[in-house]
Amino acid sequence: MKKLINSPENLVVEALHGMEAAHGDLVKAHFEPNYLVRADGPVKNKVALLSGGGSGHEPMHGGFVGKGMLDAACPGAVFTSPTPDQMYEAGKAANGGKGVLLIVKNYTGDVMNFELASDLLKADGIDVESVIIDDDVAVKDSTWTAGRRGVGTTVIAEKICGGAAEDGLSLKDVANLCRKVNAQGRSMGLALTSCTVPHVGKPTFELPEGEIEMGVGIHGEPGRTRMKLKSADELTAMLMEPIISDIPYKSGDEVLLFVNGLGGTPLLELYVIYRKAAEIAQAHGLKVVRNLVGSYITSLEMAGTSITMLKLDHDMKKYWDAPVKTPALRWGL
Amino acid sequence: MKKLINSPENLVVEALHGMEAAHGDLVKAHFEPNYLVRADGPVKNKVALLSGGGSGHEPMHGGFVGKGMLDAACPGAVFTSPTPDQMYEAGKAANGGKGVLLIVKNYTGDVMNFELASDLLKADGIDVESVIIDDDVAVKDSTWTAGRRGVGTTVIAEKICGGAAEDGLSLKDVANLCRKVNAQGRSMGLALTSCTVPHVGKPTFELPEGEIEMGVGIHGEPGRTRMKLKSADELTAMLMEPIISDIPYKSGDEVLLFVNGLGGTPLLELYVIYRKAAEIAQAHGLKVVRNLVGSYITSLEMAGTSITMLKLDHDMKKYWDAPVKTPALRWGL
Repeated sequence: MKKLINSPENLVVEALHGMEAAHGDLVKAHFEPNYLVRADGPVKNKVALLSGGGSGHEPMHGGFVGKGMLDAACPGAVFTSPTPDQMYEAGKAANGGKGVLLIVKNYTGDVMNFELASDLLKADGIDVESVIIDDDVAVKDSTWTAGRRGVGTTVIAEKICGGAAEDGLSLKDVANLCRKVNAQGRSMGLALTSCTVPHVGKPTFELPEGEIEMGVGIHGEPGRTRMKLKSADELTAMLMEPIISDIPYKSGDEVLLFVNGLGGTPLLELYVIYRKAAEIAQAHGLKVVRNLVGSYITSLEMAGTSITMLKLDHDMKKYWDAPVKTPALRWGL
Repeated sequence: MKKLINSPENLVVEALHGMEAAHGDLVKAHFEPNYLVRADGPVKNKVALLSGGGSGHEPMHGGFVGKGMLDAACPGAVFTSPTPDQMYEAGKAANGGKGVLLIVKNYTGDVMNFELASDLLKADGIDVESVIIDDDVAVKDSTWTAGRRGVGTTVIAEKICGGAAEDGLSLKDVANLCRKVNAQGRSMGLALTSCTVPHVGKPTFELPEGEIEMGVGIHGEPGRTRMKLKSADELTAMLMEPIISDIPYKSGDEVLLFVNGLGGTPLLELYVIYRKAAEIAQAHGLKVVRNLVGSYITSLEMAGTSITMLKLDHDMKKYWDAPVKTPALRWGL
């Protein structure tokens, strides 16, 4: 294992220090328990958005804290759910009096811990809504998950709901918008290589030369099948087909197309995939009117990609376009 | 070799199609010869900025085409200089009547080809200035280079000079600012792994488990020494020491600190490095007032990092902060 770290134990805390050192105008780090909050928060009379999950998926979630997106993020150890006390303290710190929306990826540990945190926040008299993201069409149940896993739609949901919260929507309305984004978003990914969790010290799984994992999860969970590497166009079609056959759409609908890198895949390759994915969407009568290309929800240094497609409506487009200023996503500010 | 491509031959052209498909509001792709230009260009009465180099370093340079940064970029084959006719056609297409600045990284092929392109453009009556970036303190001469190599300062120079060109500065003044940025910028990198050029099909070099290349070039050129992997803090100090001892500065000076990923290194690790690099800069009396953290000048999927430090002056700060809207760097717009 070769990594630019000091020790597996200190990795997350040191990275949080680094984020605060680099982006102190945007985020503030708290330790024991660990979380990031907006430097200018809590924002009075705005619904607060809180997300979190295991570390190793950066820039998600910490890189999305700032105006127009998250109010707080809780990083667990690498690929390990944060604890309820992290979520509880972050929720209290982020709350500006209009309640807290918890955006939770569908993994058993995360769901359970966010549920406990929700109870703790409610016991303090804070309004809380929770939305579980379960957009991964690859598999029904998986390691650490009952039902579909939560992946790329999380990034999109955090942006759109962040815009809605800035616009003054109520907790119930932001939560309903988030549920609608989840209902209209679908994702699937594939891996060319594994990744190594620092405190484990060896690759999560083995992929022989010439083979890929189709439908891989963001922690290296098994997907649909182990298969031979094919051309980028063939693989893109294999990711798009299950997404398109599952997403509720009709010809002429507008979509956001998000081609994501899992960490170790060059941007050059992501654009080759985007080109084909957009072509396939168009061939189905979909209008790709918004997009995102880059490594935003990663699995450490894993080589691979995931595609997320979201069927858009008027509000989703408006809040996607709304200004955002976070370490990892920024426009209009 | 496992890559998400269709064929090594079509990789660059397909990626250009993908960039145009994703960012058609910002960039327009031309083929035979291949280059990207601003979708709203040529911009009348603004100095045009043109850069380019081998592909495989994305988002540099194509990802930096847009308002406030480059007017055009020429991608060569992977790790191969673009040709003079690409540069010539791109320069003509980008010129808005106020001349063209060529920003050239110091590699023998690039320098020679940009020189030829400069002659061709001048023969057409276009004003041209060239600035060679040679900021890499790792080695004096190297594979493909006489003198120092051009690396991370290129990204910073493109942003700062882009801001200056938008502000209406003359060709001579933008070129002089670019020379000053180069004179005040220093970089050094290290690799944990090699990378594989698609049309070669095997890794550029071999790095055994537990070893790193200190001072590596962005094409995998040898650096200062092959050595055992150390802690992130020790390695960061080894990158910062040659930068700080070479850069002209005095205590109290303001700097921009850029921690760059070479492609396969997770953002989590880059923040660990940023934290230590900022601490070292501060210990030398430097004030880190601007920064950039992420993978902006890469070597395909190489794991590793480079650090760039630029001593700032008033104009550099102003033009760094100026609005920019490109596929890879965006703020204020």
